[in-house]
Amino acid sequence: MVGICNPDQMSNGFLIRTTRINYFCYPMNYYDKHKDVLATAVAAIYQRKYWSPYPESPRAYAEDADAKAKEAFAKQMNQNFDGLTASTNWVGEEVSPFLQTGIGVKYPQHSVDELLANATKAQQSWGSTSVETRAGLLTESLERIKGRFFDIAYATMHCTGQANMMSFQASGPHANDRALEAVAMGLQQQTIFPAEVEWVKPMGKFDLKLRKNYKSVPKGVGLVIGCSTFPVWNTVPGVYANLICGNVTLVKPHPKAVLPIAIVIAELQKLLTEAGLDPNTVQLAVDTSDAPITKQLAENKAIKLVDFTGSNAFGDYVESLPKTTFTEKAGVNCALIDSVADMKAVAGNLAFSACLYSGQMCTAPQTIFIAETGVKTSEGHFSYDEVVVSISEAFTGLVNNPKMGANILGALQSDVTLNRLQNAKNLGGKVVLDTALVKNEEFENSRTHSPVLLEVSAADEQIYGQECFGPVTFIVKTSNIKQSLEIMQELAVSKGALTCSCWCTDADKCSEIETQMNAAFVPVSFNFGGAAFVNSHAAFSDLHVTGGNPAGNASFTNADFITKRFVWVGNRYGI
Amino acid sequence: MVGICNPDQMSNGFLIRTTRINYFCYPMNYYDKHKDVLATAVAAIYQRKYWSPYPESPRAYAEDADAKAKEAFAKQMNQNFDGLTASTNWVGEEVSPFLQTGIGVKYPQHSVDELLANATKAQQSWGSTSVETRAGLLTESLERIKGRFFDIAYATMHCTGQANMMSFQASGPHANDRALEAVAMGLQQQTIFPAEVEWVKPMGKFDLKLRKNYKSVPKGVGLVIGCSTFPVWNTVPGVYANLICGNVTLVKPHPKAVLPIAIVIAELQKLLTEAGLDPNTVQLAVDTSDAPITKQLAENKAIKLVDFTGSNAFGDYVESLPKTTFTEKAGVNCALIDSVADMKAVAGNLAFSACLYSGQMCTAPQTIFIAETGVKTSEGHFSYDEVVVSISEAFTGLVNNPKMGANILGALQSDVTLNRLQNAKNLGGKVVLDTALVKNEEFENSRTHSPVLLEVSAADEQIYGQECFGPVTFIVKTSNIKQSLEIMQELAVSKGALTCSCWCTDADKCSEIETQMNAAFVPVSFNFGGAAFVNSHAAFSDLHVTGGNPAGNASFTNADFITKRFVWVGNRYGI
Repeated sequence: MVGICNPDQMSNGFLIRTTRINYFCYPMNYYDKHKDVLATAVAAIYQRKYWSPYPESPRAYAEDADAKAKEAFAKQMNQNFDGLTASTNWVGEEVSPFLQTGIGVKYPQHSVDELLANATKAQQSWGSTSVETRAGLLTESLERIKGRFFDIAYATMHCTGQANMMSFQASGPHANDRALEAVAMGLQQQTIFPAEVEWVKPMGKFDLKLRKNYKSVPKGVGLVIGCSTFPVWNTVPGVYANLICGNVTLVKPHPKAVLPIAIVIAELQKLLTEAGLDPNTVQLAVDTSDAPITKQLAENKAIKLVDFTGSNAFGDYVESLPKTTFTEKAGVNCALIDSVADMKAVAGNLAFSACLYSGQMCTAPQTIFIAETGVKTSEGHFSYDEVVVSISEAFTGLVNNPKMGANILGALQSDVTLNRLQNAKNLGGKVVLDTALVKNEEFENSRTHSPVLLEVSAADEQIYGQECFGPVTFIVKTSNIKQSLEIMQELAVSKGALTCSCWCTDADKCSEIETQMNAAFVPVSFNFGGAAFVNSHAAFSDLHVTGGNPAGNASFTNADFITKRFVWVGNRYGI
Repeated sequence: MVGICNPDQMSNGFLIRTTRINYFCYPMNYYDKHKDVLATAVAAIYQRKYWSPYPESPRAYAEDADAKAKEAFAKQMNQNFDGLTASTNWVGEEVSPFLQTGIGVKYPQHSVDELLANATKAQQSWGSTSVETRAGLLTESLERIKGRFFDIAYATMHCTGQANMMSFQASGPHANDRALEAVAMGLQQQTIFPAEVEWVKPMGKFDLKLRKNYKSVPKGVGLVIGCSTFPVWNTVPGVYANLICGNVTLVKPHPKAVLPIAIVIAELQKLLTEAGLDPNTVQLAVDTSDAPITKQLAENKAIKLVDFTGSNAFGDYVESLPKTTFTEKAGVNCALIDSVADMKAVAGNLAFSACLYSGQMCTAPQTIFIAETGVKTSEGHFSYDEVVVSISEAFTGLVNNPKMGANILGALQSDVTLNRLQNAKNLGGKVVLDTALVKNEEFENSRTHSPVLLEVSAADEQIYGQECFGPVTFIVKTSNIKQSLEIMQELAVSKGALTCSCWCTDADKCSEIETQMNAAFVPVSFNFGGAAFVNSHAAFSDLHVTGGNPAGNASFTNADFITKRFVWVGNRYGI
């Protein structure tokens, strides 16, 4: 059966070329083991319906897994991290936002020269494995990481300040989903051309025949630079995208957020060793705040690709390197409330999205536009002031709800964010809500603080028109929806945006808003309520960052996220 | 039937989404007319076997087409070019390399401001057409251009110096093939995600449902900068790739090579007008050697994409722009002769490739590596000197063959190339063949000159290790194949290469050469003979330029050539 992208044989809806089957030469044939899930993953990418092979509910896992992991984390504290190539230098400076004490874990540090020499050596063997071998092995690694989800969750909590459930889901199943998505896209993109064809051109009196082959050649060693808030979720897409394309990878974590990704890398290295491959195919490149090595690595000519999540300043620097780069930077995520069915529900949805993990999500809404004429609702017209009151009440209600507040907010990852939050009242505009310490029942020292809500006018762009990372929300009063939309579009073009929320009950207006914001390469989430939150970008369905505005130049996971990591080369043989 | 890349309905092996069928709103439904050829073209891209819908033999067209075109060209000389938006300024400075007189054709010139204002206006309408509308219309334009192949051939001859047959094939059917390839890849890449899905996530006690859509949003106005030697073949891939992605396009031709691409653009504009669309969707942006406008256009913020073919210096400048760029620059194409079946045949094949259009092809071999130990042949061992004699005799034989010489060589496009050729004997090394005027029976003033053949040593990299555009060939004597390969790989990495020719009868050595050169992202053509020449890159099968070394950052036509021109944006609606 021949399909468009599948010039040869099809099995289970997915192309497998018989000419390649013999390439599998490792003791355990992980490709055979995982080919069904890989085929389903490829199909899921192109269908974009809901799919995940890693359950997001902790209840789907062993009953004692959580308790065991909690205990293991307590034992890991103040110990050297085991499972990575040892070194004489051990460094670590993570501080738990919940405990506000150092967790005391140290990681083996290797010099930049050593890391690059190891990587260059490993590139020889990894670069010559087949894409199917890599796909099998990488999917197996995700299976093994699945067995460590609870360990990764506690590690994530105590370096990022994410509450326990988010730590589990974001660094566990959701990160694995994104990693598998990259593997599946990589497998599919690297098999779109046949491995070999006979090309026969009729020349009139004779045929010109050539034998041709097509190879996806890896670009080389990649560097993936992690961030402090999502040390796994934002790191694994680049790591797995590199690896599936045959590119050996160095992971340079944020020095304050190492443990969760160290567990992931240790699992990968263990599996590589078992499979007779070089464990340095993926290495942890730790550094310290006092002696950062990121630029030294990024600028080294041995590094061909750089993935980065973090600030605009550093992201712009990464993009300026003469390399293949993939960035996720900051932006100003806007929200627009034009007309709603239920004002209270909308305010609640917005408050949840803004407060979730204390607004330390790149997808969180920050700047809310409301026309001075107010909002049409199914309960009648709400004046602008009434809308502000609804939102303010929703924020307060969420924070003060003992079952929600501290759990939704989690903790502030750093003192820098706390300072920014505490200074927000001085930014200008009217302080609707100021921040206060929020009691966390489990962790008495937790760095948990309620959000700041500020009211500003359309003219105050210097206040609301930049990212204010953390739980700070601006309500912008505009003349009308037209002005709101113009500012939102202009901000998306100049500052970037990862998300845009919109509540509007008029289909024509929605269509216009969609067109305008899409032209600035911002996706719009309309009329979210219930369990739908703008923060969440689901793998296999939602593209995370479009790559089209200053919020980043890459997208999890479109074809570019893969195809920029290798080069198609076609050879021809006279016959 | 559901395939991997085709989540919905399949017809004729190609995905057509029923949800999009209603988008066709133009008087003539060109998508319906051409959907079969488009489906076949998409299949051909992924099968990479021989395919072309535009016959390359002039005999496949009307018997009097050539004579009519010759007459039409004579009438066009010294006249203003009709068929493009008129202007009060008319410029033109093309000189026929065959006649060595100006052809006197002038083209309407518009100011940069006017060009950009026209383009920005046209972007509104073109950007909102459906990809199927664009695909239909663009395929129709290629059908109409097919009716102008002979006009384009004479135009190409008299600005590039290509002989008649190459002018016909390269600017006619082969260029159309490349344009259709871009259209087909663009249609396929922009329909890989469904237009709309319902996303249903089981949440335990309830389902979370969202309606999602996926849009390929055009990046905006593109600029395509043409070259003087292949004004159509190297220009149309970028033009059609832009247009299929919804990006309005400005074509800035080389001021010495305008007429053939002017005919193409006039056909496009005529069709756009007929279809009720803005003819400025594609504009000709002519300038003069004295007052070039390329940088002014390229740097303008309205220009989002730049395609370029030409020199390394300008190409590096284009790549440095903060835009999406696609470059084809120069390189040093190497050849290696290790062992052959028939030395004379190999020397003849190499001579043909080096002399074809006087070496003014980006794919022509330039630097030939031969070990001092000579070459193994089926007729016995050839010493190094005997191999040089064979090659020299093949060059001389070709040049002196009255049926071949002038016809293969064509004419030198510019005096700059003639000067470079005439100075080649002073580069250093041993002059095996110096250049001489070659008589052209049809055009007595033709700028046709025989090639220079130089012998150099491996140490003379400053001589042979850079592009010497035109009919100059270097034979490099090395210690052994290992040294040859090392230099070839190093040159590919430092200077770039579009092609590599290799003659070697040992399969293991071929495999090693392939691996080494592929690692530098250079494709290798092995053991070419008969009608197989390294110069020729066939659409739908051969990737032209890999994009992985300094010879260029783009490839005709891999997925990147398309996907970098638009942005996937996904919107979500609560339901």
